[in-house]
Amino acid sequence: MNSSIVRYILGHVLKIEAALMVIPVIVGVIYREKAISAFLITIALCAVCGILMTIKKPANTVFYLKEGCITTALSWILMSIFGCLPFFISREIPSFTDALFETISGFTTTGASILSEVEGLSQSIMFWRCFTHWIGGMGVLVFLLAVIPLTGGSNINLMKAESPGPSVGKLVPKIRYTARILYIIYFGMTVLQTILLLFGGMTFLDALNTAMGTAGTGGFGIRNDSFTSFSPYIQWVVTIFMILFGVNFNAYYLIVLRQFKKAVKVEEVRCYFGIILAATAIIFVNIYRSVGTVELTLRQSMFQVASIITTTGFSSVDFDMWPSLSKSVLVVLMFVGACAGSTGGGIKVSRFIIVIKTIFREIQSYIHPKSVKVIKTEGKPVDSETCRSVSIYFITFMMIFTASLLLISIEGKDIVTNFTAVAATINNIGPGLSAVGPTQNFGSYSDFSKYVLMFDMLAGRLELFPLIILFTPSVWKDLVTKKVSERKMRRIRRG
Amino acid sequence: MNSSIVRYILGHVLKIEAALMVIPVIVGVIYREKAISAFLITIALCAVCGILMTIKKPANTVFYLKEGCITTALSWILMSIFGCLPFFISREIPSFTDALFETISGFTTTGASILSEVEGLSQSIMFWRCFTHWIGGMGVLVFLLAVIPLTGGSNINLMKAESPGPSVGKLVPKIRYTARILYIIYFGMTVLQTILLLFGGMTFLDALNTAMGTAGTGGFGIRNDSFTSFSPYIQWVVTIFMILFGVNFNAYYLIVLRQFKKAVKVEEVRCYFGIILAATAIIFVNIYRSVGTVELTLRQSMFQVASIITTTGFSSVDFDMWPSLSKSVLVVLMFVGACAGSTGGGIKVSRFIIVIKTIFREIQSYIHPKSVKVIKTEGKPVDSETCRSVSIYFITFMMIFTASLLLISIEGKDIVTNFTAVAATINNIGPGLSAVGPTQNFGSYSDFSKYVLMFDMLAGRLELFPLIILFTPSVWKDLVTKKVSERKMRRIRRG
Repeated sequence: MNSSIVRYILGHVLKIEAALMVIPVIVGVIYREKAISAFLITIALCAVCGILMTIKKPANTVFYLKEGCITTALSWILMSIFGCLPFFISREIPSFTDALFETISGFTTTGASILSEVEGLSQSIMFWRCFTHWIGGMGVLVFLLAVIPLTGGSNINLMKAESPGPSVGKLVPKIRYTARILYIIYFGMTVLQTILLLFGGMTFLDALNTAMGTAGTGGFGIRNDSFTSFSPYIQWVVTIFMILFGVNFNAYYLIVLRQFKKAVKVEEVRCYFGIILAATAIIFVNIYRSVGTVELTLRQSMFQVASIITTTGFSSVDFDMWPSLSKSVLVVLMFVGACAGSTGGGIKVSRFIIVIKTIFREIQSYIHPKSVKVIKTEGKPVDSETCRSVSIYFITFMMIFTASLLLISIEGKDIVTNFTAVAATINNIGPGLSAVGPTQNFGSYSDFSKYVLMFDMLAGRLELFPLIILFTPSVWKDLVTKKVSERKMRRIRRG
Repeated sequence: MNSSIVRYILGHVLKIEAALMVIPVIVGVIYREKAISAFLITIALCAVCGILMTIKKPANTVFYLKEGCITTALSWILMSIFGCLPFFISREIPSFTDALFETISGFTTTGASILSEVEGLSQSIMFWRCFTHWIGGMGVLVFLLAVIPLTGGSNINLMKAESPGPSVGKLVPKIRYTARILYIIYFGMTVLQTILLLFGGMTFLDALNTAMGTAGTGGFGIRNDSFTSFSPYIQWVVTIFMILFGVNFNAYYLIVLRQFKKAVKVEEVRCYFGIILAATAIIFVNIYRSVGTVELTLRQSMFQVASIITTTGFSSVDFDMWPSLSKSVLVVLMFVGACAGSTGGGIKVSRFIIVIKTIFREIQSYIHPKSVKVIKTEGKPVDSETCRSVSIYFITFMMIFTASLLLISIEGKDIVTNFTAVAATINNIGPGLSAVGPTQNFGSYSDFSKYVLMFDMLAGRLELFPLIILFTPSVWKDLVTKKVSERKMRRIRRG
């Protein structure tokens, strides 16, 4: 493994994190908060480590998929460890495990919290908490690609490892150009939502925090009851923007290029809207009698559907009290997730499209064994390699899910809590049902279970394999063997 | 589709069913029970229909995979419809839906019951109920192959559609010979278990019923509390035989052929025993404190592990009261299931072996993209077609699971009940947790949900595709179109 380039990129990531932390410092200065010092210490640490790691440029820029995975996984872990320091040093989250959980939950845009009381946080800490969503939504490495020139084939391997969904590489002839466009769209939509929320009577900081949480499909709320006590106007704005941020950004890219016809025809986006409408309709019918009015029923059902399918995790009602059918629909949506190429998590609509078409082809092969049908998505044939890797993704997902479920079952919480806790973290949603329902939090889990769930959040955000590769012993054995043999070589030369 | 051969085989199936029903009549005669008349009416119906359907031999014996699937699915449905008549006509199960549920549960070796009170059943009805397990365990069509000569390539397509697991065709150079050997092993082991149970003080009929329920990995108990009130000796005998009937029958076949070394080395069987030991150990540690003595803890944990992994579904304790970890382990085992080529259900150990090896290969491909590793099971390379179809099986399974869960959620039962009800039926186990736990039953579900669960039981037993094909509209459209065009042709000829 080319470890020097991994180190070099990680150093850059830390420098970026130091730079990003200047913004909460500004918030802290405005509100004259003590937490500033916690940020300043962290910035200093990040900067020093970052500078030390980037002093020596790597001689060898060879960068394969393995390095891409390792770099991505390590950079997310490193960012989270440094990112949790302000929470920890300021004592606003006194336990390190909890602070790390909250930060990983932020960066991975999960929004699962260990805090039962968020309204007491200082403004700068609250801002940093929501800002992690915004940073994590698009990914830091993509940002790195947008601003720092890296040599060789490194770009595509990094982007492959960090971007959600199976479709990277479609619109990427010039990867740096694309990355920039994506960030501009992301930034523009966040600004637009902030403005619309200001019209709803929010303060600027609240509006910005909410918009960042929505943009990253994160889910950290600024009130203890999430969105229950906000006005219908604000709830609708958030609903619409959650849905918009779950759309495949390729569609927006096509709109930017003025290819409106193509943008409207993106199959994944159509399916995504279809699922949202169908799920909202089912829940509407299921809860209408107990809610009473059409507008409120529609608002509640659509808010929750949008929040869960985009894996944001806001809530405008305690859906844990809903009837069984509605809860089951939400649990299914947890796994479906948003579009590939959006900021949302989950398994992704496009994977489901491919998988369902694969099943239909299998049925056809029983009926007409000699006719071989080609699977098409977005009008183009899907090669068998993609079908295969999507199937493997599903199965790997289920295995990690099962292992996590067993591990967190050790401490004895009930099955619904454990099942939905894993579902809500690995799909980067936030709240689950029962003891991790929308009015509850993850604080009651043991540290051991919290680390399992942190793994799940990272695995879900990075689409499993980068994190699995990081924890594969043979990768590290190779590295150690190489280092040892290099040292031997040097000794021989000296000798 | 060649519908005349389908009709012909179905006719034979009905004739076999009529013959099999003579045995409960004998039981009824011995115990002088009223239920005899219900059996006699059903036998007459089966025989008449069977004879009418087999009068005309099919001219064309062409028989493809499609016909194999349709025949298998229809024969199981038909057998269940006729098989439920004794319950219904004798009024021992007054609702037709319930009687059908109980019969499908019997033939598919699920063992999920709608009866809260089984000790009041008459002996002949009780015998028939347990006998359905024994019949369903090995499959009627395999029996058909063993006794009736069918022409052409029909055999392998029928066996493919009915036999559990992905490995049919391995030991099948002479399919009729194999089918006979399998039945002899099955019969012999059932007799052995009956004798051992007699030593435990059971009456002959109770011993036979229990042995048949174990052999088919069914799960209908002869007491309301399943095995809770039986002696430790009987519980241990049942535990051991459950495990033995979950072993891949290929291993026994090898023993019959005196290839002991090969038999011991069957990878699937080794994994199967490994999983049983590991699961028992986890549950042992988890429940030891609350149980108290080593023997009782070991007996309870191993009985339940054996019962669930082999998808039998007997219980010797109310495991719904166990701590979360133990319950989660059991839920995971529900999906794992027994060995392929056994009488057990579930996804099958061999499929898990293939899937896990596929995941490891995928991880390897990230680390060493250029090295292509071949997956091997049982020492032989697995071709990519098998890997592909196993992956598709998993995913199709999950989709049917999810759809069923949503459908039975409509009536509003809690999530754990619904989740484990689907898991327990599609994996042909029997009891689940909560309201379908070992001390409860499926009687409280609505008729609609019962039909969904009946579909799941059949889908699980026939390994999904035969049943899916049966419900694929295009298959029937083809048939109708063909009939219409045949009629037109005749008219033209006459004309």
